[in-house]
Amino acid sequence: MHYKLALIGFGNVARALARLLVRKQDLLKSKYDLTFSFTGLATGKHGFAVNPDGLDIQKALVLVESGKDISPLNISQPALSNVEGLPIPNSLAVIQNSQADMMFENSPVNYETGQPAITHVRAALNAGMHVSTANKGTVVHGYQELSALAISKNKRFMFESTVLGGTPVFSTFREALPAADLISFKGIINATTNIILSRMEDGESFETAVKYCQSVGIAETDPSGDVDGWDASIKVAALATVLMDTPLKPQQVERTGIRRITSEMIAKAKSESKRYKLVASAERAGENIEARVAPELVDSASPLYGMMGSSTGLTFRTDVLPDYSIIVSEHEGMMGGPVETAYGLFADFVNVVKQ
Amino acid sequence: MHYKLALIGFGNVARALARLLVRKQDLLKSKYDLTFSFTGLATGKHGFAVNPDGLDIQKALVLVESGKDISPLNISQPALSNVEGLPIPNSLAVIQNSQADMMFENSPVNYETGQPAITHVRAALNAGMHVSTANKGTVVHGYQELSALAISKNKRFMFESTVLGGTPVFSTFREALPAADLISFKGIINATTNIILSRMEDGESFETAVKYCQSVGIAETDPSGDVDGWDASIKVAALATVLMDTPLKPQQVERTGIRRITSEMIAKAKSESKRYKLVASAERAGENIEARVAPELVDSASPLYGMMGSSTGLTFRTDVLPDYSIIVSEHEGMMGGPVETAYGLFADFVNVVKQ
Repeated sequence: MHYKLALIGFGNVARALARLLVRKQDLLKSKYDLTFSFTGLATGKHGFAVNPDGLDIQKALVLVESGKDISPLNISQPALSNVEGLPIPNSLAVIQNSQADMMFENSPVNYETGQPAITHVRAALNAGMHVSTANKGTVVHGYQELSALAISKNKRFMFESTVLGGTPVFSTFREALPAADLISFKGIINATTNIILSRMEDGESFETAVKYCQSVGIAETDPSGDVDGWDASIKVAALATVLMDTPLKPQQVERTGIRRITSEMIAKAKSESKRYKLVASAERAGENIEARVAPELVDSASPLYGMMGSSTGLTFRTDVLPDYSIIVSEHEGMMGGPVETAYGLFADFVNVVKQ
Repeated sequence: MHYKLALIGFGNVARALARLLVRKQDLLKSKYDLTFSFTGLATGKHGFAVNPDGLDIQKALVLVESGKDISPLNISQPALSNVEGLPIPNSLAVIQNSQADMMFENSPVNYETGQPAITHVRAALNAGMHVSTANKGTVVHGYQELSALAISKNKRFMFESTVLGGTPVFSTFREALPAADLISFKGIINATTNIILSRMEDGESFETAVKYCQSVGIAETDPSGDVDGWDASIKVAALATVLMDTPLKPQQVERTGIRRITSEMIAKAKSESKRYKLVASAERAGENIEARVAPELVDSASPLYGMMGSSTGLTFRTDVLPDYSIIVSEHEGMMGGPVETAYGLFADFVNVVKQ
């Protein structure tokens, strides 16, 4: 089996994916009899390239990471032929001309509309490609349309990386918990706020902890997306939409951030062997889903208690097992980030091929 | 798709499986277009029955649970024709005559030899059936032979329930963590000892805690299999054999039980916000696996700290993610037991069908 791959978006996550695929290529060959080549690349600022015979991915990595354009890797301008009247080149032209078997969508997220990622995914599915994306916008704004389109084309629309980076959530329900009824879930799904609360327990002020997160590239210049619970709400919406088969928008999630949690509150909790955590949860209530993101005081009996720093995790209540938790915790040199997120895209690829 | 099923062993787990299949039959039909019938049953003390057109499973449950024989459900004695010179009827005759597409092996475990379960699995695979088993003996003593046989017959040999009941471990590595290199794992995989240590922290003596476990049917009359770490060692051997692709026998696991952990030690640990846990672990050391079952003192930073009572779980260190933990914790009315173990067999069935 040989898979041609198109990478739409070539930022930190997509480049980590390319490197992971190269690192694992011998294993993929021996375990799954799988080889692959990269036949289309679309970057945000460094141009576009198509070569159905396979691009030199190492050269592309070097070019982009030294701030140069990848268009020398494009075999010819006609390969990027016009698509739907858009200027040439563009991401849609790369998709159309790449002859790829699978497209990885990692363009920047737009939380309001999910665009242009949804358009990219639609084009790839219509062109007969499988799709994997780390772009939350496609799930929150396009899950039902894109899933139905994928089924009608006998292709897969995969998005393991959208919620907890590479941590397997969706695949867990596909294969590890098949035919289970998800009644509710609860957990810590935003690393930034968990780092802030952990550092405040060690005596740092809120402001200093936010600055730390910004300094290591985890929090944005405007930290409100994390701190006010928006990021967690978007993830809750994606989880409920897919795993509880009930469309839920981020705006429908009752949302309280961590700004009201003071150092004094955290110190008092610590003296009682308790901790504040920004807890995301959802549960079925008749036909609807009641979903919430809010700080909670937890004690050591809670699986959330021991989750410090960038650790994240979820507990699932189903009709078939006792409470089932998955937790990802950092250890030396290994925490959430582009490399981990890339593994979710990689796992989607392997699961597409296995099937 | 219609699957004919043979149940070899019809104890608590197999009967819970039959009930779960019946409860989920509408979902299996709507989600996987799957129907099933039971065509062979072999019990330990209540006889044997074969009917390739489908046995009345409700009647079988009633008969066995009221202490009666199921042979009235057998369509005719010739159906249980002689196999390899054994007396008629017997489990092998049920397998051979059931015309089943999948066989569930749940006969009593023999830790020394894995028999007769291995013989049953071999016969079913040779007769062209998929197999799922909760019997640890088949993995510890037969994994490589039976897996190779299954591959040669283009069938599946599945055993999700053998290690943590229905908690998904093996399927997690198949689909949720594909192509990941497992470097080490560590966790609590014996519920009895965890209940004992939890109750000792609440002030009970070791002896009283053991009696409690016996009174609720979790510990055997001779509790040494749990207390001395044998059960955990067998599970470590099964995990390493399958997930690290390196054969390991229970005797190769360095083993210390919990008998030396006194109430005083537990009280002292508690005063320091620490806890003793019986920790099972394995890690690669060159070509070999170093595996161990021994009590460890853990603090609240450990994911094991919050796991009390019958909770069990494992943390996996791989080359692709930060540390990944799966934890199962009891909640009202839902803890490990036959119903949960049955879900592992059920999940194997769904995964066979999906493929």
